[in-house]
Amino acid sequence: MGPIQGPDAFAALYAVDEVRYVDELPAALLTPSAGGEPIVGADAEGRKIHVLSGVNTDSGSTVVGASFDGLADVGAAVESEVLHQTMIQLRAVKTPAELEVMRYVCKVSSEAHVELMKKVKPGMYEYQAESLFMHHCYFYGGHRHVGYTCICGAGTNAAVLHYGHAGAPNDAPISDGDMLLFDMGGEYARYGADITCSYPANGKFSEQQKTIYNIVLASVKAVEDAMRPGVSWPDMHLLAERTILEGLVEAGILVGSVDEMMDACLASTFMPHGLGHLLGIDTHDVGGYLAGESRSSRPGLASLRMGRVLEENMVVTVEPGVYFIDCALDKALATPEQARFINQEGLAAYRTFGGVRIEDDVVVTSDGIENLTLVPREVDDIEAVMAGGEWAAAKMERVE
Amino acid sequence: MGPIQGPDAFAALYAVDEVRYVDELPAALLTPSAGGEPIVGADAEGRKIHVLSGVNTDSGSTVVGASFDGLADVGAAVESEVLHQTMIQLRAVKTPAELEVMRYVCKVSSEAHVELMKKVKPGMYEYQAESLFMHHCYFYGGHRHVGYTCICGAGTNAAVLHYGHAGAPNDAPISDGDMLLFDMGGEYARYGADITCSYPANGKFSEQQKTIYNIVLASVKAVEDAMRPGVSWPDMHLLAERTILEGLVEAGILVGSVDEMMDACLASTFMPHGLGHLLGIDTHDVGGYLAGESRSSRPGLASLRMGRVLEENMVVTVEPGVYFIDCALDKALATPEQARFINQEGLAAYRTFGGVRIEDDVVVTSDGIENLTLVPREVDDIEAVMAGGEWAAAKMERVE
Ligand SMILES: [Mn+2]
Ligand SMILES: [Mn+2]
Repeated sequence: MGPIQGPDAFAALYAVDEVRYVDELPAALLTPSAGGEPIVGADAEGRKIHVLSGVNTDSGSTVVGASFDGLADVGAAVESEVLHQTMIQLRAVKTPAELEVMRYVCKVSSEAHVELMKKVKPGMYEYQAESLFMHHCYFYGGHRHVGYTCICGAGTNAAVLHYGHAGAPNDAPISDGDMLLFDMGGEYARYGADITCSYPANGKFSEQQKTIYNIVLASVKAVEDAMRPGVSWPDMHLLAERTILEGLVEAGILVGSVDEMMDACLASTFMPHGLGHLLGIDTHDVGGYLAGESRSSRPGLASLRMGRVLEENMVVTVEPGVYFIDCALDKALATPEQARFINQEGLAAYRTFGGVRIEDDVVVTSDGIENLTLVPREVDDIEAVMAGGEWAAAKMERVE
Repeated sequence: MGPIQGPDAFAALYAVDEVRYVDELPAALLTPSAGGEPIVGADAEGRKIHVLSGVNTDSGSTVVGASFDGLADVGAAVESEVLHQTMIQLRAVKTPAELEVMRYVCKVSSEAHVELMKKVKPGMYEYQAESLFMHHCYFYGGHRHVGYTCICGAGTNAAVLHYGHAGAPNDAPISDGDMLLFDMGGEYARYGADITCSYPANGKFSEQQKTIYNIVLASVKAVEDAMRPGVSWPDMHLLAERTILEGLVEAGILVGSVDEMMDACLASTFMPHGLGHLLGIDTHDVGGYLAGESRSSRPGLASLRMGRVLEENMVVTVEPGVYFIDCALDKALATPEQARFINQEGLAAYRTFGGVRIEDDVVVTSDGIENLTLVPREVDDIEAVMAGGEWAAAKMERVE
């Protein structure tokens, strides 16, 4: 296994004052040194041992607190709540060093998406797109891992939200005429990107594809224009929903009053997920709900992984989507207060469309956002890149 | 998550008669049907429920038996040993269908190794070799995963046995003059390859590199020539050790009687691991020691993951190696009964050599072996491939 590192190496790596083996901790922390004071306990002037312990509000997983012999005996000197809450807030709001890593991860992942746009073509299998993406991230960016299982859905597979998992491992062929939905992000130094690109496999948007794509893009722009510190993230989700409903009316798929559609919670039929989430060490990063807060039960908001007000240096994803999912559509059609807005003839033409999602990773700045995602988003730009055009924004300097 | 599959789909996938949800099992197995008999229990004519439960002799992990409500009540009707032992033997000896999958995995992995030989060069980082290998396995072979963490050691890193792990993630640069040790295998349909290639980064073996490489290759050949059903695998390990010691004498690194070196267990100084292991669903597959058997305590044999006699259709790795590991050499030099065989001047020139391992995956046939590994092994062949030559043996038919 190579040379074994001692405590000093880990102290240097993590930039902390002191590192001890677990079996040394009782002596180091609980016993008074010669002439010195005990670190904690009756004579220790209220000093405490902070232990990381708590529940991740996104995954539901519990961090079980560290322990060592004798720790239970010092009772009140052990503090097991403050550290977890503090760490969550530290993770939700990024430091300049963290932002530098995330800029790099997003740049490498953007470049990999752009290279993939140039290489993918009908006749390939979805997994070959995954392989091209991962190879680019690793070979040129040093990203050994991706932050989550790659989602490479072609055609109707684009409407399967967590497609790509072991039971549906991106194993379908890509056909001419398919819309592609590629949700992939590299990981470096523990921080991951989470970027989704949607585009036509053959490089040229059909009218239908352009219609749905531009509805989603309008939703991204509406949200990103409105984002700044102090803005409520649930309000942004509702703004995204409203923009999508307006687009679907214009496309002839829905008819009637968008206000009434909002009251009927119709948008979650087409976007059955939240607008976005905090991003960092976890893809769905911690801190989306503060202690005591919980999710709204309203369809749409119930899927939102963050219920907070935006703060400067939070990194969040903006990822609205429009999908045509049979069971969701059938359910809405069977619900009179939703069905009355659906133009069944307009919808019929899109039943096997699949779906579109656009996902940016953005930093909240003092007066707006910085977009870390550097891929082409306009229809014309995507078509130009897929035809072989340069895309300087995501081009890394590198030695081949 | 896409459509949910029901029991019938899994019955078809696994080719079994019937699949039930766990909560249906008490009614299906423990209760007499109308006019029928109970499957198990007092009236059931000795029929039993077989539960998979036992310890993996290689990893030490325990398979915890499946359970359902009421199972504990049927007592003697539950059999929890036979199935585990039966499955282990079924896994140790492959069927023709399993061999077909393993031939494919080894062919794809061999081709990926060959392509890497052509592309690697001084100035790259070790991880770029890993990326090239994995991309080839996935893009052309559909291998989403590798069977184990890729080991890509350059120079002295080749002497670190499990190099490549998260603490040493193939992150060193490859230099001109380095010997490379690449131990990587793709995985398909759960079955993995486990192939090691060693070659000079610059494409041309130095005299020293040729010397050590050919010692290891001679050891591979001696073992593969002797393998057939009925042969003891520990005997093959000792044959590999003996061949290596003979080579090290010829190279001037050791002096004296090889028989006496064998008595002094000297070979494990240079090859501190076993000759090979069963290969299949696990890289270190189950069944290496039968119930009641355990490993020898002799250095070398103590590291051997299989203590059995070869049977037809077992798949095993043949992977001798010679490494120059400071702490192992210093220990031998400090042990008079080993030090007396070491020519310190001869050894000095190899201290920073690193190491060589050659690893084949072979099937035991009725009268010998079939080698599933299709990479160049002779020095001349490797140099020719690295100079751009064709290597037809591992060339897949494919559409690019
Ligand atoms: Mn996301
Ligand atoms: Mn092996």
